[in-house]
Parts: sequence; structure tokens; C-alpha cells
Amino acid sequence: MNNKYSFIGGQQGTWQVIDVRGVWGASLERVERVNVVNEAVATLPIRSSWVLQSFTSNMRYAKRDELNTLQAIQPGLNRSEAISAVLIPIKKSAQWWEMAQDERRAIFEEESHHTAVGLEYLPGVARRLFHCRDLGEPFDFLTWFEFAPEHTQAFDQLLVRMQASKEWEYVEREVEVRLERI
Amino acid sequence: MNNKYSFIGGQQGTWQVIDVRGVWGASLERVERVNVVNEAVATLPIRSSWVLQSFTSNMRYAKRDELNTLQAIQPGLNRSEAISAVLIPIKKSAQWWEMAQDERRAIFEEESHHTAVGLEYLPGVARRLFHCRDLGEPFDFLTWFEFAPEHTQAFDQLLVRMQASKEWEYVEREVEVRLERI
Repeated sequence: MNNKYSFIGGQQGTWQVIDVRGVWGASLERVERVNVVNEAVATLPIRSSWVLQSFTSNMRYAKRDELNTLQAIQPGLNRSEAISAVLIPIKKSAQWWEMAQDERRAIFEEESHHTAVGLEYLPGVARRLFHCRDLGEPFDFLTWFEFAPEHTQAFDQLLVRMQASKEWEYVEREVEVRLERI
Repeated sequence: MNNKYSFIGGQQGTWQVIDVRGVWGASLERVERVNVVNEAVATLPIRSSWVLQSFTSNMRYAKRDELNTLQAIQPGLNRSEAISAVLIPIKKSAQWWEMAQDERRAIFEEESHHTAVGLEYLPGVARRLFHCRDLGEPFDFLTWFEFAPEHTQAFDQLLVRMQASKEWEYVEREVEVRLERI
């Protein structure tokens, strides 16, 4: 199984860019399209402005009961009705990464209810997490959300709730890339 | 900070190979020396037999009290008296990686006392963990141990205790590379 994924911002791919917005810190350059490929792309392809490399990995915080609930109701990507997507690259502070596992878990779930809040928006808003900090990338994570247009308002509410959480006090850079499948 | 490390098995480097032994599953080819470099080495250098790529990362299981104890007594690498080293590449089973965080933590510490047992051998046996599973490498982790020759017996005992633990039931490949600094 190849766990490597690259998100290429340029003129190619099936995802048309609706908006690029810097939420915290520097934004990414506005591009026409985003191409998502299941491979490592180490050098910037021609006619593209940026490439974000990442990998999928094992669960880092979820406990067994949370994982069972997630696996029971989370939909796959590429549902025909899910033509809206949002890519959210995030970088957390050094302080976050210096914390021990129990400290990060306590902020992530017991204080911020990260998994529990996300569950409320399933199966409408599908979500997939990609890791990039360990690759020395500018962001720590890329989260990909996919939903039918009628769930846009629910998705926006989910974002506001996450951004108001204790966990987000450790977010030092965040970009929102709104997309529509062509 | 560059968190990338490669271990090159060949004819170069400051670490002379004393022994290479497959503990579980396929071994690695016996080489003369191991060269440890603080960079990604994607292609096999000439006159070398293997290269293992890895990265250092944040703590995955340690709680705050364990981390405090570790940080208080763990020595750095490259102590002048620590001329013995052992490189232990390990691969864990798919079953391990499909477990939730609380299930892995319970086996790692509450059942196998991974951190607690390692602490008993500090500061004599220094230890550093490198991750490689997320890079699509043949091993999941590389652990590097460094100690003065008089701690060899203590190190051997540490190994036996870890290999007898519940956690090791999930290890499906393990190689032991014994080294001596030239």
C-alpha cells in the first residue's frame, strides 16, 4: 500500500479552486486547480505554484470506542454527490509538539472534543487526515473534507467550532482552500 | 532542524560492524561498516549494500511524568566512553497498527513497561528512536543504543526483557546490528 499523497496547486487536476484564504499566518498562492495524486512529488511540476507532500498513517489519539464509532459511520471519499471539498493545511506550535502524549490527548479530546465534534457532522462531511510534519514540510497536517453542496453550512459551523477550541490555541498557521469537482 | 537520518550499510562510516543477526524474519546483509548521516539518502550509495531511511519525531506514548523522568536522566549520544552501539530495525504487524491509541499504549507501557524497563538501564545505555514506517520503508522503527563496553551485559539483559514482553508478540521482523566505534 502506497501511503504517499501530494497536493499540487496549479492548472491541472479535477478540483477547481473557488477560494484560497489565509486564516492564520501566510496564505498559499491562489491557483486555478488542485491535483491530488497518490505519490510523492518531490519537485514542483511545471505550471504549478506549490506542492504539499504528505502521508496517511495510524491513528494518533482515538481510543477504541471512538474508532469503532468513526469506522461505523464515516463515508469514503469520491461519493458522486460530494462535489465540494476543502483542503485545510495546518501548522501547530513547537509548544504543542513538546507536550507528552497524555497532555496532547487531553487538549485534543477531553478539552476540545475534536473527534466528538467531527462525528456530529458525519456522514455528511467526509474527512481524511494527511500528515506532513515528519517530512519537514511547511505544514504539520492537511485535512481534506468532502461533502455535497447542501452540507456547506454544516461544514462552516464545524470549522468555527474547531477554531474556537482550546486545541486551536496551538495552531500558528492555517490556510483554507475551497474546491469544487469539475 | 533537519529530522532526517539515514543508516548506510557498506564500507564507510565510523561504526565497524561486529555482528548482524536476524532475530525474527529476514536479516540484513552483513557489511563492514555503518555510516549514520543526518540527511535523506534516497538512492543506494556505491559500494554499499543497504540504506535505511528514518526521521526523529514527537513522543508517541510517553506521559508527562515519564517524559520528565526520561529527560532528567537520559544522556546524549557520542559520549567518549560509549564506543559500543547496537542498531535494531523492527517491523510490527498490521494488527498492531490497526489498534487504537489506548490499546497500543496499554500493551506498550501498562503490560510491557517499555519506558519503565528502559529507564532502569539509564544513564548507562543511551537510546534514540527513529521512525520509518510512514516513509514506506521495510522496517517501522530503528532503535539506536550506545554504551560503554562494560554495559554490554546490562544491554543484553534489557534486550531479553523487551523481547519477552507482550509488545514483542507484535514484532514480525527484527535485526540486531552490533557495532563498535572506530
